[in-house]
Amino acid sequence: MAEQKQNRPKARLPRGFRDRGPAEIAAERAMLDTIRRVYESYGFEPLETPAFEYTDALGKFLPDVDRPNAGVFSLKDDDEQWLSLRYDLTAPLARYVAENFQHLAKPFRRYQTGSVWRNEKPGPGRFREFTQFDADTVGSASPAADAELLMMLADTLEALKLKRGEYIVKLNNRKLLDGLLEAIGLTPSGLLTAMNRGVVLRAIDKLDRLGPQGVFQLLTTGRTDDSGDFTKGAELSTAEADNVMRFLGYSMNVTRGYVEDSFQGVGKGPDRLERIAERVSFGPTGIQGTKELRDIIQIVRSCGYEEDRIAVDQTVVRGLDYYTGPVFEAQLTFPVTNEKGDTVVFGSVAGGGRYDNLVARFMGQPSPATGVSIGVSRLQHALSLRGISSGALTPLVFVTTMDDPAESFKIANELRREGIRTEVYAGNKKLQDQLKYADRRGAVFAIIQGSIERDMGQVTIKGLEFGKEISNVLKSREEWLANQSGRQINVDRDMMLNEIKRLLSNWSWGP
Amino acid sequence: MAEQKQNRPKARLPRGFRDRGPAEIAAERAMLDTIRRVYESYGFEPLETPAFEYTDALGKFLPDVDRPNAGVFSLKDDDEQWLSLRYDLTAPLARYVAENFQHLAKPFRRYQTGSVWRNEKPGPGRFREFTQFDADTVGSASPAADAELLMMLADTLEALKLKRGEYIVKLNNRKLLDGLLEAIGLTPSGLLTAMNRGVVLRAIDKLDRLGPQGVFQLLTTGRTDDSGDFTKGAELSTAEADNVMRFLGYSMNVTRGYVEDSFQGVGKGPDRLERIAERVSFGPTGIQGTKELRDIIQIVRSCGYEEDRIAVDQTVVRGLDYYTGPVFEAQLTFPVTNEKGDTVVFGSVAGGGRYDNLVARFMGQPSPATGVSIGVSRLQHALSLRGISSGALTPLVFVTTMDDPAESFKIANELRREGIRTEVYAGNKKLQDQLKYADRRGAVFAIIQGSIERDMGQVTIKGLEFGKEISNVLKSREEWLANQSGRQINVDRDMMLNEIKRLLSNWSWGP
Repeated sequence: MAEQKQNRPKARLPRGFRDRGPAEIAAERAMLDTIRRVYESYGFEPLETPAFEYTDALGKFLPDVDRPNAGVFSLKDDDEQWLSLRYDLTAPLARYVAENFQHLAKPFRRYQTGSVWRNEKPGPGRFREFTQFDADTVGSASPAADAELLMMLADTLEALKLKRGEYIVKLNNRKLLDGLLEAIGLTPSGLLTAMNRGVVLRAIDKLDRLGPQGVFQLLTTGRTDDSGDFTKGAELSTAEADNVMRFLGYSMNVTRGYVEDSFQGVGKGPDRLERIAERVSFGPTGIQGTKELRDIIQIVRSCGYEEDRIAVDQTVVRGLDYYTGPVFEAQLTFPVTNEKGDTVVFGSVAGGGRYDNLVARFMGQPSPATGVSIGVSRLQHALSLRGISSGALTPLVFVTTMDDPAESFKIANELRREGIRTEVYAGNKKLQDQLKYADRRGAVFAIIQGSIERDMGQVTIKGLEFGKEISNVLKSREEWLANQSGRQINVDRDMMLNEIKRLLSNWSWGP
Repeated sequence: MAEQKQNRPKARLPRGFRDRGPAEIAAERAMLDTIRRVYESYGFEPLETPAFEYTDALGKFLPDVDRPNAGVFSLKDDDEQWLSLRYDLTAPLARYVAENFQHLAKPFRRYQTGSVWRNEKPGPGRFREFTQFDADTVGSASPAADAELLMMLADTLEALKLKRGEYIVKLNNRKLLDGLLEAIGLTPSGLLTAMNRGVVLRAIDKLDRLGPQGVFQLLTTGRTDDSGDFTKGAELSTAEADNVMRFLGYSMNVTRGYVEDSFQGVGKGPDRLERIAERVSFGPTGIQGTKELRDIIQIVRSCGYEEDRIAVDQTVVRGLDYYTGPVFEAQLTFPVTNEKGDTVVFGSVAGGGRYDNLVARFMGQPSPATGVSIGVSRLQHALSLRGISSGALTPLVFVTTMDDPAESFKIANELRREGIRTEVYAGNKKLQDQLKYADRRGAVFAIIQGSIERDMGQVTIKGLEFGKEISNVLKSREEWLANQSGRQINVDRDMMLNEIKRLLSNWSWGP
């Protein structure tokens, strides 16, 4: 092999990864800046941890409980220790807090944004590297810490220009379900094992997708899907499963199966929590859970966050196994068309909850913590669907390079000093090719100074394709741009800057 | 093993990685924003590539030519292909350009910033993950493309508030040295192999550290260092090595060995390039190299960038093997104390050059390219040494939580709406503990509303430790803060916002 002439490597992106260009980067940057500004206004401060953690420190808190050891990119360091790329920003936080516990002012509150990596099978829109934006409070068991995250999340979505009604922050408590299972006898000392508790949680998590009949099947004997695949059920009795269904807000109807109760749906009026508590019996854990929810709701309502922004929803589960109390999820409520062509609501863009055991793994003592994570790409996608674009670059002016590149740079420097984004042509092609390039770059005007113009002490300012297309938004200079046979003017060199500024000030860009 | 009770994992940072806190993150963010603004003003637009590339696409263009295959974090994907984390931002650019060549408007100009990873032995201040900021122009062989990068680099350093004279952008051309070796007979067809050309380049690169005598030894018979280690030389004859030394600006003095020629040193007057060309014979490659340098210098001088900002320096080598023409380096000239306690100039913070073969590796056809890379952490360190701090967070106001957390949040929301960074205490401790926490968080004022204040329709505003320390900068309110026995005032609840705004407006923060 080594003796053979080496083949050229093929230039290709690794499977499941992607490149991103100016528009997407600028939009994401603007979005991250807004989130950061809101989080900092609440007193959260940034932390950065490395891409790698020791594999044993990341532990098994993996998102997909079915494959606890898969899903992570790992390699062995030269001292034989295993390193893994972080798969979220919570596990590194737990490591950081445990390592620096003595020196941190507690409650410790930080935000962090950055890439995370999942070694999973890529799919359409599913990448193996993506950005998260997390905020967490470690060292406070107070419901105020949870309430704050909910309000901060609502504030963030509105700061991102989502209208009220286009989003809802939903709140649940894992203890409600545990209390329900307790009440029907499925306690840790009884039938309730971590295993079938997980099956029950995952069944509930599929309500949106499978509907109440499918959930009931998964709670009891199991379910066969359209392709014939069978999913094992939680083996609850019909009575037990019916209790869970009532908790979720569904009642058995003789002809139609499980149908939604009238108390479903978000709206004004008494909080859904109280309506649930009225009709379901909780064990002690569930009673504690409802108290926690009441405390949180009392704070956010007092601050003016009504049910159209923050609402209890007992069907919210959140997949992660490590949550121990309140869980929450921000959903976008406007309709979009999915891959199958169906109209659905956009759905979840952020989620989180209380996890009191993650730091304990290192410390041996519990450390109450609560946090929220925004799926940055998904939220960005939602904003672009809503036409909420931001972060666009300012208009670009293009300077051609003829026989004297230095003169082109001098012209550009004058413009840049006034804050005008200006590109000098850095190749050595003919004028027509340069102007074609300028069009492809989306420049608005080209400035040309060949030897003729220079001898006359002038420059030519030429409107480009991008300029032409939106020339109808121009008011005062339209007579100039309308003159298609001569979409250019000559101005004295020392008037150039003023003329460009005047042209740009009549310019209208962005929505 | 699996049967044993699992030990708790130890919470520790992986070797050679680091966590970063608010001050460092804010300073870096401000610095990156400034660089971005300057680069965008030149028409460069952002690109993001993934952390991973296929190992064969990264190739052997590694920074350390002595270990061409080491230095990279690699792992095997589940389809048996090798993936590597990027070790710089240039190799991914080459892959991107080759993959998208047909669709790109050329010259293609992009900037990219992000983490890179080096699988190397960590040392003090040497980390295995760090940030780079690159700008490149691909598809232009014109000296205008190089000149633009030099001017953009100088503009960037001044936009970062470095004063003229505190930095210098140095320019050289690999072709000068090649032309020199040609002239003394060390041509590819003669003695010049890639191997001993590399030895000569690395010898010159060590001029700063070893001085002219050490370089001469490395050019000829080799050198034994203080610890007794021997480094092999390039085996040039004394006459050949003397030619290289003259090129570097050193003449043999009978009593003192090699001493600096009078034309050394940056200053006004004719460019050093012409003084070098006068006294050294170049072969055809060197003559081409001097022409390229003259063209670049002519452009930057015409644009007003004199020798105090951009200067030819024939001792600049840049370690990377892939440079084919002009190379450049931005150095900071102010003195600092190094680890050994010696006073030295700060040195290099950015570098780059022309590399015409990197894209060709994929394409089979050459694609001229030139680029510059800023070492972000190193430059940030330099700015902090100069006392150029930026990006600091605005003052923090702290709201205690007594018996009514909702009221605390309402107070905080009022302040945040005015853009005041406000933290609500999210724990449930005693007032004294809360105020101690607020001090540790660096808050300026605490707002307290216990039941007594609430009954009176008032709040208490208390000056904290951080506020006390800089109370002497306060003009109008110093009588209040000077009152150490009662560094607090009570105000009516509905006057609170105005009072806080008034206190903060008299506040002076940042340099």
